Amino acid sequence: MAIELKDLTKRATNYSQWYNELVVKADLAEQSAVRGCMVIKPYGYAIWEKMQRELDDSFKLTGVQNAYFPLLIPKSFLCREAEHVEGFAKECAVVTHYRLKNDPDGNGVVVDPEARLEEELIIRPTSETIIWNTYRNWISSYRDLPLLVNQWANVMRWEMRTRMFLRTAEFLWQEGHTAHATSDEAQAKAIEMLNVYADFAEQFMAMPVIKGVKTANERFAGAVETYTIEAMMQDGKALQSGTSHFLGQNFAKAFDVKFINKENQLEYVWATSWGVSTRLMGALIMTHSDDNGLVLPPRLAPIQVVIIPIYKKADQLETIDAVVHPIVLRLLSKGISVKYDKADNKRAGFKFADYELKGVPVRLVLGPRDIENGTVELMRRDTLEKEIVPLEGIEDHVKRLLDDIQQSLYDKALRHREELTFKVDTWDDFVARIEQGGFVLAHWDGTTETEEKIKELTKATIRCIPMDSEPEAGHCILTGAPSTRRVIFARNY
Amino acid sequence: MAIELKDLTKRATNYSQWYNELVVKADLAEQSAVRGCMVIKPYGYAIWEKMQRELDDSFKLTGVQNAYFPLLIPKSFLCREAEHVEGFAKECAVVTHYRLKNDPDGNGVVVDPEARLEEELIIRPTSETIIWNTYRNWISSYRDLPLLVNQWANVMRWEMRTRMFLRTAEFLWQEGHTAHATSDEAQAKAIEMLNVYADFAEQFMAMPVIKGVKTANERFAGAVETYTIEAMMQDGKALQSGTSHFLGQNFAKAFDVKFINKENQLEYVWATSWGVSTRLMGALIMTHSDDNGLVLPPRLAPIQVVIIPIYKKADQLETIDAVVHPIVLRLLSKGISVKYDKADNKRAGFKFADYELKGVPVRLVLGPRDIENGTVELMRRDTLEKEIVPLEGIEDHVKRLLDDIQQSLYDKALRHREELTFKVDTWDDFVARIEQGGFVLAHWDGTTETEEKIKELTKATIRCIPMDSEPEAGHCILTGAPSTRRVIFARNY
Repeated sequence: MAIELKDLTKRATNYSQWYNELVVKADLAEQSAVRGCMVIKPYGYAIWEKMQRELDDSFKLTGVQNAYFPLLIPKSFLCREAEHVEGFAKECAVVTHYRLKNDPDGNGVVVDPEARLEEELIIRPTSETIIWNTYRNWISSYRDLPLLVNQWANVMRWEMRTRMFLRTAEFLWQEGHTAHATSDEAQAKAIEMLNVYADFAEQFMAMPVIKGVKTANERFAGAVETYTIEAMMQDGKALQSGTSHFLGQNFAKAFDVKFINKENQLEYVWATSWGVSTRLMGALIMTHSDDNGLVLPPRLAPIQVVIIPIYKKADQLETIDAVVHPIVLRLLSKGISVKYDKADNKRAGFKFADYELKGVPVRLVLGPRDIENGTVELMRRDTLEKEIVPLEGIEDHVKRLLDDIQQSLYDKALRHREELTFKVDTWDDFVARIEQGGFVLAHWDGTTETEEKIKELTKATIRCIPMDSEPEAGHCILTGAPSTRRVIFARNY
Repeated sequence: MAIELKDLTKRATNYSQWYNELVVKADLAEQSAVRGCMVIKPYGYAIWEKMQRELDDSFKLTGVQNAYFPLLIPKSFLCREAEHVEGFAKECAVVTHYRLKNDPDGNGVVVDPEARLEEELIIRPTSETIIWNTYRNWISSYRDLPLLVNQWANVMRWEMRTRMFLRTAEFLWQEGHTAHATSDEAQAKAIEMLNVYADFAEQFMAMPVIKGVKTANERFAGAVETYTIEAMMQDGKALQSGTSHFLGQNFAKAFDVKFINKENQLEYVWATSWGVSTRLMGALIMTHSDDNGLVLPPRLAPIQVVIIPIYKKADQLETIDAVVHPIVLRLLSKGISVKYDKADNKRAGFKFADYELKGVPVRLVLGPRDIENGTVELMRRDTLEKEIVPLEGIEDHVKRLLDDIQQSLYDKALRHREELTFKVDTWDDFVARIEQGGFVLAHWDGTTETEEKIKELTKATIRCIPMDSEPEAGHCILTGAPSTRRVIFARNY
């Protein structure tokens, strides 16, 4: 086994350290020279590209178009929406100057004090303000609506404690910003996009999610309602994986965006915004991976199948090559991405460990004896199970297997979540349960005060009020006040 | 005709104003609230996305992988490579603080003076420095080479005079950064990528380009050699459309990136970088468009065919619908993007003008009489020629026509360039020719001094030393000193 693999911390030993190490060892990302900013390495970026492509196609099917808005936002824009500025203005990167000059002392370059901006510019932490300032010129009549725009962009929030993919100062994301003629239509769009996110998470990431509504306390700064998808990681903690906001008329009012409705009256426009980010990479890693490294769902794996030859002499490799090449073509013709790794400067054992670490879903190994027998050794990464299968029809076998792995990963994650989800009705049980990890379904009196008190006492937050939850009479876990439905509590990333 | 179209300035009247208006009227981009930064609107972004997709596929075919590096660069990094800092440090956006706070006077938010960064951060004007600082940890042996990485990113250069797409403070681009074991291999990669750019320009943008080498004076800051593709716009000016740099060992030395070669010796790594940007949008617009608006080559047109029904009564529309729907499917099945615009809140005349303005390559118009006759009126945007063609087999007709338009646009642009390219041998002819526009092939004595003097006197720069030029003895147009080959002079964007 490779040295790198031996060194991977076990999940049971230290889950957090396991994650940090895995991100680096699997070549997904690394810290950069700039505090809190990461470098996304080619292998990690290839996964992100697959996510982007699928999400982008889904957005477009709902009528959304892409556009691009400026990176920098005038400081005054942030202040237009009162709650928004509270949420976003505090920790952000501020551009104050536009020129450097040679240091008079000869030590490189210094900021030119004469090149100070009249108004400071903020690197976008999110783009509602600059976009709604633009929409004012794009919208004048109901005929201009709905306006359905998305952008793929980098954003920056000066987080104090950062973790790769999960919380970084700069991150990549998409942010959709839509404008509508009616409240109902905007509400429906916010929920439609939440469903797009949930379908993507479940069908591509093989990650079950719970769709729900955020409490007032956890709402996006400036939103009337925030919808969320919440996933459970292997340590029982929640990870908010995507949010979609109904913004009411807040930003339209802040930026004076009105339209003439069908009744010929001037009215403020209704809005949504919604986003997912490279945080999904963290969710993907933590949902499926194990002590041997990454486990990737086939639909997002940059390499779905790796083929490794075992040989001693050059003529053996030639024989294997002759068998493998048509197999590669047949796999490709089924839409399966495949890598035939016959690099001769790495031993087979090293390759095995490396592709395990990188989470390649299926491994095929071929030696001279396999060629004689017309067979191949196949290993599936999720269970590490090996089997010997005939070379004849291998492409159909692999195709079925990839589908099976995709489904198995989802099923396993769902089972895990169900096993770690508990209905709790007493405070003592609640505290004990939260301490052990998992989702706790409990009653809450609906006040921010109680929510914050519970967080203070247990570090658990209300992840969401699930959309599919049934009304149920009960009493708040902390105050005993009456409650009409259970909400989900958990510790979270 | 639509009001917007009537207002478009004619090229002959004011080419520069025509361009600025067209960018806005065709819904490609607009100025934002941030000085020098543009908003790329959905229609413009859709063209950029098509460019990105084609370029990205081409890069990957050469073995390049995508990755992502931080937006912000420590100020000190810029100073490591002496020429680089001279070229890029001067006009850039400087982040000095990481927090805002409520204004004690109650007027919104102000920069928190306590949140000053120890070292200022620069918004990347280009990423050689941060990337080579990263490569130091990625490269230790010849086995790690070549390293072929690209990123799609936003960059910022605080330009004083900006024009949409052509020169903006923030722009979108891709920047490839490769590392090699030998000088020859790096040189070859730089030229390979220049060829990728040239092929893309010619085959997709229908824009002929001249491949050449930049003079020392026009070289990228930090490069040993800069290769360029130069295109001619309709006004006879040159537009540098993409560059590829052989960086020698300059950045490897600046960031101490060494590798153990096959002879087991420690050596500095050899480098290239190469990029194209949203500037290509400007080149695309200026190469083909006319006084009626945009003209798009079919291979980059977001909508290749628009179908417009002409009718008075609802039942006529129903009849047309029944004929159009199968045509749409047949066009789609040929890989042709099509829009059937039966919006009833716009008159047909308005639609005609609007799609002309937006450069949709082919327009089909169907009225009740066409249905009776089994025909359709077809117009090609490049020549505005109309013809009546049978509905039967229309998809094949359109497919051939799109290919024809693509080729015609290229041929026309090439003819234009050839007509405006002149060999000139006397200074008086040179001055007169430059004044009238076009490319001037002239002898030059090879000194930066002469190059700058010519620029000062005529505003013409040496666009490149063409790669395919034949050696030819002659005398410098300005100094009369001997010269071995002609170079291309032109005024430029």
